[in-house]
Amino acid sequence: MTTRCTDEHGSNRPAGGHSGRRPGESGTRDAILVAAREAFAADGFDKATLRAIAASAGVDPALVRHFYTDKETLFDRAMTLPWDSDEIVSAIIEGDPERVGERIVLRFLLSWETGTSRDVFRAMIRSAVTHDRAAEMIRDLITRRLVGPVTRALRVPYPDLRATLVGSQLVGLAMVRYVTRVEPLASLDREAAARVVGPNVQRYLTGDLETRT
Amino acid sequence: MTTRCTDEHGSNRPAGGHSGRRPGESGTRDAILVAAREAFAADGFDKATLRAIAASAGVDPALVRHFYTDKETLFDRAMTLPWDSDEIVSAIIEGDPERVGERIVLRFLLSWETGTSRDVFRAMIRSAVTHDRAAEMIRDLITRRLVGPVTRALRVPYPDLRATLVGSQLVGLAMVRYVTRVEPLASLDREAAARVVGPNVQRYLTGDLETRT
Repeated sequence: MTTRCTDEHGSNRPAGGHSGRRPGESGTRDAILVAAREAFAADGFDKATLRAIAASAGVDPALVRHFYTDKETLFDRAMTLPWDSDEIVSAIIEGDPERVGERIVLRFLLSWETGTSRDVFRAMIRSAVTHDRAAEMIRDLITRRLVGPVTRALRVPYPDLRATLVGSQLVGLAMVRYVTRVEPLASLDREAAARVVGPNVQRYLTGDLETRT
Repeated sequence: MTTRCTDEHGSNRPAGGHSGRRPGESGTRDAILVAAREAFAADGFDKATLRAIAASAGVDPALVRHFYTDKETLFDRAMTLPWDSDEIVSAIIEGDPERVGERIVLRFLLSWETGTSRDVFRAMIRSAVTHDRAAEMIRDLITRRLVGPVTRALRVPYPDLRATLVGSQLVGLAMVRYVTRVEPLASLDREAAARVVGPNVQRYLTGDLETRT
């Protein structure tokens, strides 16, 4: 089975790779990344194997090792989000300030349900419980790349605590909706889910966190 | 290394086990369960091995197989929560109706931080991303054993949706606080965490979920 090249990773070069590029090399490398994302998303880091990824990409396992050295390196490369973090954060912050929470949830659900980020997010969460690098990627998304920039832009007190609280709701929403699939939340329409969860995220973003201390 | 018998599973008998009980047999079985919980909690279902569990309990791997047949069966037995679900639900519901959310969060955090449930919860969440039985246990806790009974007792509309929303917040809180350990939420004092997350859970329990449809 071959997997088609459909994404943006063609320009990455292997560390220490040879300088002559064979025709089709970038297509092969992309096919491996796509197969890797699918495998990590379905099975998590521990269960996924280079052999199965190679088979799914239609290449020899030795070629996977040639391009990506080992499973850790392949995981790191495959987990690159096709995201402009600044652009996403701007889109979340602009508009009705009372609905920043809803916009962040909707954007998060969209990323879980469409495109390359779909497999990246699934792989990240399935791997985070046992693989430190994946846990680090989640921490990074919460504190630095997605939620942290939003709370800092809002100029509210306790931006770091607020970011982790929002992160807790987003990660839990993903676990319940996409990983353990608990109904009726798993099948709820994306916009309805964002409307129902949004006000809770909004309280974490801008609400009074010390009402009963 | 031997592990001391410290919990409540001594009365479980192996399916199809022999009827003559050797002296110390229940102690050995308990030591295996304690070692299993610790291994599943640290490594998740996939990475934990019967061999390592046997070594940690100070017994031969053959004895683990004799008592518990295979890793799936051992996981099921080790995951038994030392809980009276009715009693916990009653304690959560009684008291100030405006603080049911805070009480459910506090009880949940207590279970994550103390006693046998500490390892059970860690094992469950670390295994749920790849092992269907663990995912089923989480679904069961949300819909039937912990949150579902609370939303049904509150006689609010949409009790099932509310239960899964609360579940999403609790699971995410555990992932961020205990698994990926994102600061400052990971180190926040337990009571402070319950106060700050409680009102969000309260909205899911009793609030208006359709403010902007």
